Amino acid sequence: MAKRRGRRTGGTEVNYKKELESAAKSMILVHEPDTLIRMIVRRIVQKVQVSHAAILLQQKDRDTYVLSVSRGLTGLKVPAGFVRMDRDNPLINFFVQHKDDFVLHGGVLIYDRVKKIITRRIKSQPHRLLKRVLHQMDIFEAEVCIPSYFRDELLGVLFLGKKKNCKRFVRQELDFFVALASDVSMAMRNAQLFKELAQELDKNRRLFINTTIALAAAIEAKDNYTRGHTARVTNLSLEIAKKLNQKDNNALNEKFFDDLHIASLLHDIGKIGIPEHILNKEGPLSAEEKKRMEDHSVVGVNILQSIKELEDSMLGVKYHHERYDGSGYPEGLKGKQIPLIAAVIAVADAFDAMTTNRPYRRGLTKDEAVQEIMRTRGQQFDPEVVTAFLVLYEEGKI
Amino acid sequence: MAKRRGRRTGGTEVNYKKELESAAKSMILVHEPDTLIRMIVRRIVQKVQVSHAAILLQQKDRDTYVLSVSRGLTGLKVPAGFVRMDRDNPLINFFVQHKDDFVLHGGVLIYDRVKKIITRRIKSQPHRLLKRVLHQMDIFEAEVCIPSYFRDELLGVLFLGKKKNCKRFVRQELDFFVALASDVSMAMRNAQLFKELAQELDKNRRLFINTTIALAAAIEAKDNYTRGHTARVTNLSLEIAKKLNQKDNNALNEKFFDDLHIASLLHDIGKIGIPEHILNKEGPLSAEEKKRMEDHSVVGVNILQSIKELEDSMLGVKYHHERYDGSGYPEGLKGKQIPLIAAVIAVADAFDAMTTNRPYRRGLTKDEAVQEIMRTRGQQFDPEVVTAFLVLYEEGKI
Repeated sequence: MAKRRGRRTGGTEVNYKKELESAAKSMILVHEPDTLIRMIVRRIVQKVQVSHAAILLQQKDRDTYVLSVSRGLTGLKVPAGFVRMDRDNPLINFFVQHKDDFVLHGGVLIYDRVKKIITRRIKSQPHRLLKRVLHQMDIFEAEVCIPSYFRDELLGVLFLGKKKNCKRFVRQELDFFVALASDVSMAMRNAQLFKELAQELDKNRRLFINTTIALAAAIEAKDNYTRGHTARVTNLSLEIAKKLNQKDNNALNEKFFDDLHIASLLHDIGKIGIPEHILNKEGPLSAEEKKRMEDHSVVGVNILQSIKELEDSMLGVKYHHERYDGSGYPEGLKGKQIPLIAAVIAVADAFDAMTTNRPYRRGLTKDEAVQEIMRTRGQQFDPEVVTAFLVLYEEGKI
Repeated sequence: MAKRRGRRTGGTEVNYKKELESAAKSMILVHEPDTLIRMIVRRIVQKVQVSHAAILLQQKDRDTYVLSVSRGLTGLKVPAGFVRMDRDNPLINFFVQHKDDFVLHGGVLIYDRVKKIITRRIKSQPHRLLKRVLHQMDIFEAEVCIPSYFRDELLGVLFLGKKKNCKRFVRQELDFFVALASDVSMAMRNAQLFKELAQELDKNRRLFINTTIALAAAIEAKDNYTRGHTARVTNLSLEIAKKLNQKDNNALNEKFFDDLHIASLLHDIGKIGIPEHILNKEGPLSAEEKKRMEDHSVVGVNILQSIKELEDSMLGVKYHHERYDGSGYPEGLKGKQIPLIAAVIAVADAFDAMTTNRPYRRGLTKDEAVQEIMRTRGQQFDPEVVTAFLVLYEEGKI
């Protein structure tokens, strides 16, 4: 199949058909618009050996066009993103209005041809506009400009500088650029759709987290003495998990961090069921009241158990009062039976509770609380989690 | 540019280059895998005039292949989704293992060629496997099979039946199919990625709504007499909005419904700040307690006001106790000053409150409550919203 093609194109030895196929194939799999554009321009400059190439791209508002990349083998020519044009720009105006014009030779605007038309005053061309178009091409040192449309919309313009060998572009090359510019439009549209979808997803994730944060904070506000507790436990849990991850060669995946984030935000959600007079009682609780308090981890799970996506987070909510020696609640799990997500929250939760003032006792200082956590390491707390916690402490991050 | 090509291909008059370009362009913009496959198969059958065509596609588990479509000009040949193959299937096995095999002539498995190799016992081909491959081609009445790979992975196999004119496929046609099959792989991969992203987005939306539902239900549980109130108000609000939309030529967009959904779920969220003894008080409230109760709409907004995406929903939370004649709270808005989202919730909320039993009074019957809402239409309630509500009532949906 590898026939020799491109021999006639004045010294270049590019197999344009293959080049186009391979370009189209890479394009469809690149969903990051900026990466896509950089890739295409690099390809053109390398394969066709032009001094520089750039792409002017329609922005989301549909009225502005920005020069996305301009790069030659000798380096950057025009700073990317520096040039911004609207529909009033002569070049944009020309392409939007004149897309079937005879000035556009086979879909390409060629500098020499425009010059000839102007000097020979051929036909009744609007010379004022053409002169201004030529001036724009001068500014960008563009030999040719290739517009690219999707349906009737101008999506972008490909600019090419002179060929390195100083020869003219031949028809085969121009045809290649027209086909390429068209593929680029399709791929860009595809990439933009992809990006929009990804942004939507991102926005939705933030909405979920932020709403959960707000509702958790509102629920916590019932308990006079724990203001800010949820936020502090969440931050500390995530920091501890990062340290664990560093030590453990990134064994924790992104999902673990997402689950931990949700779990620590919701770890006390079950307290919503506890009457305020128990929650805010000044002084020790009766046995029954204590039982009611301890129920909160299970109540929390009951509230959210129907949500399949929160399954793993719920392990953190349910077991964050288990103790490493098996003396915790609700199930008396022991050692590594306790899910890591719960073991992390346990340390963060205990540290924050110890350092908070209550009406019937002053909170411990940070140093005292750390001492206490070290003392009960292996009894109350998972030793590995405590190690990670201590690293944070020694780094002054607690 | 429209040169005549394809003349040599035994009677067909297909310009394969143009055909391929146009196919590739449609493909990149179709992000629904099933639609994409149907489109491609239809195109092949029409342009190349074959009796039938089908595509066997790798599934997400990477080990199963399913026949996605099989359609000829005479109708469906094999029910789509009916055929499922794993890596043990001789055909799949052959393509996975033998992709550079000389049996594959220029990337295509041709029925006649396989038969010839078997009967002439050419080379040391594994005839056992080849015979089984041939049997598979018999089953699908496949003249040719074209595999398509992404890197080293078999993504799919294109099956083609006989040409309508009963001639053999020529090289130019086969080359076209190979290129097409390769484009299909890329496009399918793209479409699958797109679908996964869209599904992820969908999952995330559900997670957000479900978590909000669960937390709202937990908050509501504090108030002994309103169990299920939030869910009922939410359902009724959405039904009223649908009726309004029908009457108003679909003037309400999807975002309005999303906002209304969230707003009605959260309309009483501010009650979280009200002490239980006020919330559950049996008998009329004192002036101060009443004030505390009325604060709930503003408190609800305070809880969530930092979340930009909930801005429009918050209008529903804040103003659902405004009255059409301006005598409501918190701001005493009048008539159409009251955002529609709040006017809808107001009717749904009032109807549910009226029909619920309280310890100090029995709830009204449905009919009585509807009478009451009609009576205060234009005073307490937005007349248009009441009209939509009445339509629901008359249809027996309340």
